[in-house]
Amino acid sequence: MKASVIGATGYAGVELLRLLDGHPEVELGVITSESSTGENIAAMYPHLAKRVSRELASMKEIEKIAADSDVIFIALPHGHAMKIGSQLRNSKVRIIDLGGDYRFKDHKVFEEWYKLKHEDPTANAVYGLTELYREEVKKATILANPGCYTTCSILALVPLFKAGLIETKGVIVDAKSGTTGAGRSLKVGSLYCSVNENFHAYGVASHRHTPEIEQTYSDFAGEEVIIQFTPHLLPVDRGILSTCYANLKQGVTDAQVAKAYNDLYGEEFFIRVLGKGACPEIKNVRASNYVDIGWEIDRRTGRIIAMSAIDNLVKGAAGQAVQNMNVMFGIEETTGLRQLPIYP
Amino acid sequence: MKASVIGATGYAGVELLRLLDGHPEVELGVITSESSTGENIAAMYPHLAKRVSRELASMKEIEKIAADSDVIFIALPHGHAMKIGSQLRNSKVRIIDLGGDYRFKDHKVFEEWYKLKHEDPTANAVYGLTELYREEVKKATILANPGCYTTCSILALVPLFKAGLIETKGVIVDAKSGTTGAGRSLKVGSLYCSVNENFHAYGVASHRHTPEIEQTYSDFAGEEVIIQFTPHLLPVDRGILSTCYANLKQGVTDAQVAKAYNDLYGEEFFIRVLGKGACPEIKNVRASNYVDIGWEIDRRTGRIIAMSAIDNLVKGAAGQAVQNMNVMFGIEETTGLRQLPIYP
Amino acid sequence: MKASVIGATGYAGVELLRLLDGHPEVELGVITSESSTGENIAAMYPHLAKRVSRELASMKEIEKIAADSDVIFIALPHGHAMKIGSQLRNSKVRIIDLGGDYRFKDHKVFEEWYKLKHEDPTANAVYGLTELYREEVKKATILANPGCYTTCSILALVPLFKAGLIETKGVIVDAKSGTTGAGRSLKVGSLYCSVNENFHAYGVASHRHTPEIEQTYSDFAGEEVIIQFTPHLLPVDRGILSTCYANLKQGVTDAQVAKAYNDLYGEEFFIRVLGKGACPEIKNVRASNYVDIGWEIDRRTGRIIAMSAIDNLVKGAAGQAVQNMNVMFGIEETTGLRQLPIYP
Amino acid sequence: MKASVIGATGYAGVELLRLLDGHPEVELGVITSESSTGENIAAMYPHLAKRVSRELASMKEIEKIAADSDVIFIALPHGHAMKIGSQLRNSKVRIIDLGGDYRFKDHKVFEEWYKLKHEDPTANAVYGLTELYREEVKKATILANPGCYTTCSILALVPLFKAGLIETKGVIVDAKSGTTGAGRSLKVGSLYCSVNENFHAYGVASHRHTPEIEQTYSDFAGEEVIIQFTPHLLPVDRGILSTCYANLKQGVTDAQVAKAYNDLYGEEFFIRVLGKGACPEIKNVRASNYVDIGWEIDRRTGRIIAMSAIDNLVKGAAGQAVQNMNVMFGIEETTGLRQLPIYP
Repeated sequence: MKASVIGATGYAGVELLRLLDGHPEVELGVITSESSTGENIAAMYPHLAKRVSRELASMKEIEKIAADSDVIFIALPHGHAMKIGSQLRNSKVRIIDLGGDYRFKDHKVFEEWYKLKHEDPTANAVYGLTELYREEVKKATILANPGCYTTCSILALVPLFKAGLIETKGVIVDAKSGTTGAGRSLKVGSLYCSVNENFHAYGVASHRHTPEIEQTYSDFAGEEVIIQFTPHLLPVDRGILSTCYANLKQGVTDAQVAKAYNDLYGEEFFIRVLGKGACPEIKNVRASNYVDIGWEIDRRTGRIIAMSAIDNLVKGAAGQAVQNMNVMFGIEETTGLRQLPIYP
Repeated sequence: MKASVIGATGYAGVELLRLLDGHPEVELGVITSESSTGENIAAMYPHLAKRVSRELASMKEIEKIAADSDVIFIALPHGHAMKIGSQLRNSKVRIIDLGGDYRFKDHKVFEEWYKLKHEDPTANAVYGLTELYREEVKKATILANPGCYTTCSILALVPLFKAGLIETKGVIVDAKSGTTGAGRSLKVGSLYCSVNENFHAYGVASHRHTPEIEQTYSDFAGEEVIIQFTPHLLPVDRGILSTCYANLKQGVTDAQVAKAYNDLYGEEFFIRVLGKGACPEIKNVRASNYVDIGWEIDRRTGRIIAMSAIDNLVKGAAGQAVQNMNVMFGIEETTGLRQLPIYP
Repeated sequence: MKASVIGATGYAGVELLRLLDGHPEVELGVITSESSTGENIAAMYPHLAKRVSRELASMKEIEKIAADSDVIFIALPHGHAMKIGSQLRNSKVRIIDLGGDYRFKDHKVFEEWYKLKHEDPTANAVYGLTELYREEVKKATILANPGCYTTCSILALVPLFKAGLIETKGVIVDAKSGTTGAGRSLKVGSLYCSVNENFHAYGVASHRHTPEIEQTYSDFAGEEVIIQFTPHLLPVDRGILSTCYANLKQGVTDAQVAKAYNDLYGEEFFIRVLGKGACPEIKNVRASNYVDIGWEIDRRTGRIIAMSAIDNLVKGAAGQAVQNMNVMFGIEETTGLRQLPIYP
Repeated sequence: MKASVIGATGYAGVELLRLLDGHPEVELGVITSESSTGENIAAMYPHLAKRVSRELASMKEIEKIAADSDVIFIALPHGHAMKIGSQLRNSKVRIIDLGGDYRFKDHKVFEEWYKLKHEDPTANAVYGLTELYREEVKKATILANPGCYTTCSILALVPLFKAGLIETKGVIVDAKSGTTGAGRSLKVGSLYCSVNENFHAYGVASHRHTPEIEQTYSDFAGEEVIIQFTPHLLPVDRGILSTCYANLKQGVTDAQVAKAYNDLYGEEFFIRVLGKGACPEIKNVRASNYVDIGWEIDRRTGRIIAMSAIDNLVKGAAGQAVQNMNVMFGIEETTGLRQLPIYP
């Protein structure tokens, strides 16, 4: 099958190229960049030299690209994918969007948090957190690949919501991301000397991944969940750790919590539940599609602290996108994604 | 005046040597290390060469050291200072302990969290969070210098407790510390390849700084405060960021919050309240005694998120110790501590 | 085929486990550690959880391990492999040693630089710098896998020695390695706070990789080459950059240099000659078996500056070991090693 | 005395503000930035909050600024200072330029390496490597503050040239600098994800600090010295290490080398000669004005390897500028510069 990548020069786009290159069933189609049309991607990213050495096209003729591809991945800033999606409504191509455009069941939520009118509100996109919505993913025409923070944070608590073990009120997600999450655009805040030996929060009480996490928490809780979400910038390239706080319902035991995780994730290849007392580390999942989850209960406060770690560019972006592609096209789900984490 | 340092070879001890070297009123007395007695400190720490180049003594003759010093700083693992304190009960020397031994009003709390019988429960030590207990500090004979996480976390929320603006229930402190906080002892978890490009929580629901934070929160709230405290290890040398979550009381305005910070810290040299919407960064206080504080209110959840940043070795250890010494001996409080942060 | 790993708990051993796990022709046999016998490797290295989760054996019954393996990799400190090699002289197993024991044609050089009597001087080991000695590698019974600095430094200049374009006198190799090169043993110099934000040379004029580089340079120059070799410690996990200085012979042109590199490496999968003016970067080869080479000529000084970058754990250790295994066993040489570098 | 800073928003400019703030004899005059005129410097650099909180002026009225200052520091890209210098020819203000404009005795060297016509070739500027040219510095009207690489590299070998112990041919300087050396301008190569976990050379055989090093080497050797100079980019904020290779003259002993260093630097406050076998580390001089020097002799090759470490923003820029100001104005040379290095 043939896969094209729209917006190949960002960190997520380049990570897609890496994973597709190692995928035995995929032939790479067109790769595009509007700002670097005509350049060779390997000139911009020399780690690809002699391997993914091809010219960047423009996405202007997107219909033609679509006609010649089985799937297109869109790795553009939000606001672009919904234009492409509506343009390709009649194409047979399947779309996997790594941006925010198609992630919300209710397009009004998108419009409120992204301050942008939705241009393709009737697309019927599927939210592709693979482990949670696998059946829907199989049939998706337009797939919304989840955000990095959201993938990490959702997976940490969803088993507890599903099993009804935690309160829906009072959830706090304190999350920390590596700097690839900030992208490759030129900002003082992304300079080496700004990030190195530094750490701080940003987007407090206003980050766009908040409603996305709430949407899936609510889905599994069966009622509306409002959370506190605080992202921070880590001086590392890759990795997200979400530290999630929730109030345990009265009388919930350790065994019930362990069972909830096992019920939902026991058979999942990419989710490793490390269990009670374990603190997942971002380096243990680096450059892999794994999600490591640990938890602790504080009987003094009645809370559970659930922690999850992913690589934001893999399970948080390109890896999950390929996982979804596999599911959508009936390929074995772990194909091209079985590499072990890089440690140290 | 003459200051001696008991336990000079850890990171806090060495930071003390740096600050005392730059202090115009202090002459360095004896410096000790039991494991490296007889070695020159500058051979272990060549950044001190030609400046603090002296032999490490043993603390075995602590009475003699005390007799020849105006103040002794103790920078040893917990459990040692209380022995020294009881030994020096009749000495005129004043003691500043950077460890945990003397930090609790109720020695039973110490015994419960440190799993160790207290050997000097009647010492009447003063808890030296300078800005909060300045009057007591002036008169202290034995001063308990606060922990690093605790200094950072306490200062973020105390103005709100004092002004009665937040609920005493539901407080969560999600804190992140640089690796000097883990000390210089040889552990796999402290190796470069273990910490670099990594991040994880530790001591979840069990860290010893928890009751110390609670003690001061309770003091200012006027009732018992139980908190959730989660420390994490940052891949940086220095710096702590505490992200503190509290439920605002009904109807509290931004202006009331701003006033509460200003009332308590408006005149403080070392505390910079950056205000609403500001996210303090650990690099902005590096190698200085500053505390930077910012806050945001989330009206969706009714919470305030207060964030504070310090250098764990300065305001979190040696710097505050020197600040306390200044107050105890009637020296202008900022003496030797006015250096600007090192940036970048 | 079945591969066992003797000394599986160091960084090179663990990297071998990662690569062997992804190798389609290899079944993992026994893995050993004398200090951690009985432990599960995934408990020490949680990134291996659910994948390489097996107990560490002892190497005491090495003959039995050998009898049940087609190949054994030895990833132990120097001095051990030569004992194992002589013990297994009559075994049919083939040995790939990642240490220094078998790297020297003349065992007296080993004894001089390693200050240790050689216990298996008649082993007829093959020096496995694959691209240079491929024919010998095919037939090797005991293969000496080259050192990390040596692989990187040798490949940078050997084409020029072979083509007779540089003087044999005056060669300087200024090399810089990531901290995995220092291993996982507990030393103050390997602590995060010792390495982070730091940089320094070590082993000046005395590092053991010096005679190993000289041996191959001499082999290709056709006369004895004595070099200056200076290693430095980089605050990164992985990667070596060698900056190599040599005096160009009179009248040598850019084109001759380009041809020399192309003649030797033009067909090599893992060597990417970036060409004149290019400065290879260690991040562009991270976690891959690639070698990136660039060069510049300074007509003011008559020198060529050749630079090469590798991942010290892959092409500098485990990756080249697997490459050699492939060649020894008639497997396609790049099998299990085609993963692209991890960037960023 | 009053000091103004022209170009205060780069890393060197901001470091000047830090050092001037701690200088007991200096009052800060005007600070300027053309791109950020009207902004408060503390809004751009919050580490300065509550301390150096003032508005950035324009340098358009440079004569007025000069008239109201005793000294002006220029921290602008090359090409600007020579315009200011010629404009202020009749002012009584003394100028310390941190850029390259005034560093060359022969302005043709400047023009050749900087590809720019010199506009103030008759300025009679003094080259301010303080320890080497102290007498000239005292009388300087326009002082050219040396480059960062040059300060570090010059100091490592000058004692050996002066004492006639090394050959003038064959000198190689392999230097490595932290990322503040690349400045604060927005380039992909300065992004965190480009620098972190990376290392590479740049400006091979063409870096502008080459002729500056050669000028002083030649001055002390008494004949023309041509060197090989290769800079590299280190993933740290601050620090330069120069590894310098020179051929020892026949029969030179260790003692002669030690004496040469001692003769020149024995009385210098800021230079610490660590001696034979010592490898200086950049972290041991961080945020200080110290220069640490070590050396080794390789009798196999007849070479000396001299290594020196500085903080590129302090002794390599702002610190040496203040040191020069002290000398120029008859203030004790170490005033405002005695802070110990920050370690770890």
